[in-house]
Amino acid sequence: VNTRKKESRSEESVMAAEATYRRPEIRKDAIHNRWIIFSPARARRPSDFKSNSDLNPNSNNRSECPFCVGHEHECAPEIFRVPPDSTSDWQIRVMQNLYPALNRELNFPNCPSESGQCSGDVAVIGFGFHDVVIESPVHTVHLADLSPAQVGDVFLAYKTRIDQLRTLDSIKYVPSRVAFLTCEVFKNHGSSAGASMSHSHSQIMALPVVPSAVSSRIESMKEFFEQTGKCSLCQVRTDHLLIDESTHFLSIVPFAATFPFEIWAIPRYHSSHFHELDSDKAVDLGGLLKLMFVKMSSQLNNPPFNFMIHTAPLQINPSQLPSTHWFLQIVPKLSGVGGFEMGTGCYINPVFPEDAAKVLREVSVPNNG
Amino acid sequence: VNTRKKESRSEESVMAAEATYRRPEIRKDAIHNRWIIFSPARARRPSDFKSNSDLNPNSNNRSECPFCVGHEHECAPEIFRVPPDSTSDWQIRVMQNLYPALNRELNFPNCPSESGQCSGDVAVIGFGFHDVVIESPVHTVHLADLSPAQVGDVFLAYKTRIDQLRTLDSIKYVPSRVAFLTCEVFKNHGSSAGASMSHSHSQIMALPVVPSAVSSRIESMKEFFEQTGKCSLCQVRTDHLLIDESTHFLSIVPFAATFPFEIWAIPRYHSSHFHELDSDKAVDLGGLLKLMFVKMSSQLNNPPFNFMIHTAPLQINPSQLPSTHWFLQIVPKLSGVGGFEMGTGCYINPVFPEDAAKVLREVSVPNNG
Repeated sequence: VNTRKKESRSEESVMAAEATYRRPEIRKDAIHNRWIIFSPARARRPSDFKSNSDLNPNSNNRSECPFCVGHEHECAPEIFRVPPDSTSDWQIRVMQNLYPALNRELNFPNCPSESGQCSGDVAVIGFGFHDVVIESPVHTVHLADLSPAQVGDVFLAYKTRIDQLRTLDSIKYVPSRVAFLTCEVFKNHGSSAGASMSHSHSQIMALPVVPSAVSSRIESMKEFFEQTGKCSLCQVRTDHLLIDESTHFLSIVPFAATFPFEIWAIPRYHSSHFHELDSDKAVDLGGLLKLMFVKMSSQLNNPPFNFMIHTAPLQINPSQLPSTHWFLQIVPKLSGVGGFEMGTGCYINPVFPEDAAKVLREVSVPNNG
Repeated sequence: VNTRKKESRSEESVMAAEATYRRPEIRKDAIHNRWIIFSPARARRPSDFKSNSDLNPNSNNRSECPFCVGHEHECAPEIFRVPPDSTSDWQIRVMQNLYPALNRELNFPNCPSESGQCSGDVAVIGFGFHDVVIESPVHTVHLADLSPAQVGDVFLAYKTRIDQLRTLDSIKYVPSRVAFLTCEVFKNHGSSAGASMSHSHSQIMALPVVPSAVSSRIESMKEFFEQTGKCSLCQVRTDHLLIDESTHFLSIVPFAATFPFEIWAIPRYHSSHFHELDSDKAVDLGGLLKLMFVKMSSQLNNPPFNFMIHTAPLQINPSQLPSTHWFLQIVPKLSGVGGFEMGTGCYINPVFPEDAAKVLREVSVPNNG
């Protein structure tokens, strides 16, 4: 809540303007099934802490970056590259994470022994995959600098890797309670958004469990479908919330956005799984996202950000396909999280979604697509 | 994930030692019903970002701090002080937040008008209370510097304020869907833990909704009770997870801790609501918490931290009283949150709970209680 105060002048003036006539409101995020408090007054708080001078410094140590072209031997094993037959002219590399959160070897001792014995405590082996996607061979090139087709190629690399993971032979030998239930694709851009490397990259994790936010989302969307006979994201409201649209995608600020200036890119066609994406749609999404990155950078002074692809678990019940719809969530990192949010899962957002959408819709960007 | 690297030498060496023999493991947090990944390897990652020099600077502007004694007129209206009849010799002040997230006036326009019309979107008025508890008149005194009885007095001030809120007359005039369902007490200590003021304080929010994390916790605890006939926190495992205990409380690192070195203080007696605390138990809890703060500061180099009191909603169904049990959660702020955690609600913790408990149990602190 104290970050980037100095830099985000335009954001601050927007929030100050809104604060003069808006009353707080509590909205339900029906997709994630949680309450969000919209409270413009919170944006006006002073802070007596010194502000951090620069939360998103780029590394100067380009010559030491293992993600740069020419340093491939310093990385964990490569899984594939794009184009497949390239040498030093690769554009994208998909490789193992050198510091994986999960272990891709199955031959370690059985399920944790003593851990699961007491009062309902459950533990499973930390088996899974944790991969890295290097999005460009050049240290200083970020996603927003790529062409729509190049951004599309990054999405197709995610798709290719997910297709590999979901058809892996080794799954068959895994104990029944441990199978790849979830593939999560995410990107941390900037140190304060959780990135440890400044060279542009994203990550893919294949997990043997369904995380709580995923099961809660699937459940909420199913409930909406049962009540209305319709998919909640096919029906998503766009009136004052639309930022832009392309042939196959919409970009909106959601009705109950968790974070200020949060953006969702939603397929206009019904699809439960991100990996159903084809080349045409990938380029189309690439163009829309590039535009969102440029708008976000222009309006919010190049903030650190995260994006997450919210796709259905791989082994979803076929009866849930009509109610689940994948989307991509972009969150500029403009504030931290405090005890209230940690304790309740209820976030306080100082910017009303319709105001954020207006700002992002109306900001003009140079046509460099 | 890149914070406080430099300072937390002892924590780092603990993690490095563990990383040599531990395999990743995925545990279920049965209280919050979510999966946590334990992955010591993640702690070894290098970062090519410059580290932030000081994430928790104390303000030097003591003369300008509105929370200091002598500056009472710069604050929002006071609700009460401790002792009640004190003047400039007050020890604790409970007052309105000058920048409240919710509006304590009911006489503003009815429920948000257009907002709730489309595709199941729900919004309620942002009515509620957001108060501040100043824990000491002196700018440089923190909770850990107080005596057990003084820390206990802070807890009794929370209790007094919750008792006021839950019996407020104005609730009767509020539309039926808007009533005070939840009181959240929390503390943000340090800028990177979300505090905007460095003078030691905590906050109380009374909300007209039940936040998702609260309803999910109540539901999980109820499920445990239905399966076992017992309260999950009365049965909590302590073998390798205990840090310390007092007459009425235990302090543990939970089996599936979300964050490294997270601590729970749990009443040894069954109680759903924090506000059932009496003076004896408040002093007892004050002593145990003071010890936890001192151990945490000593072992983790005085980190920023949050604490949250997880109590049951005020208007809980009486049938849920046997399964709900309040506790206090302390989270040292040692790392940030990235896209994976934001997208999944699944956290990656590099420190196994039994290792964290051992470190906190065994660290010796000067006896200054």
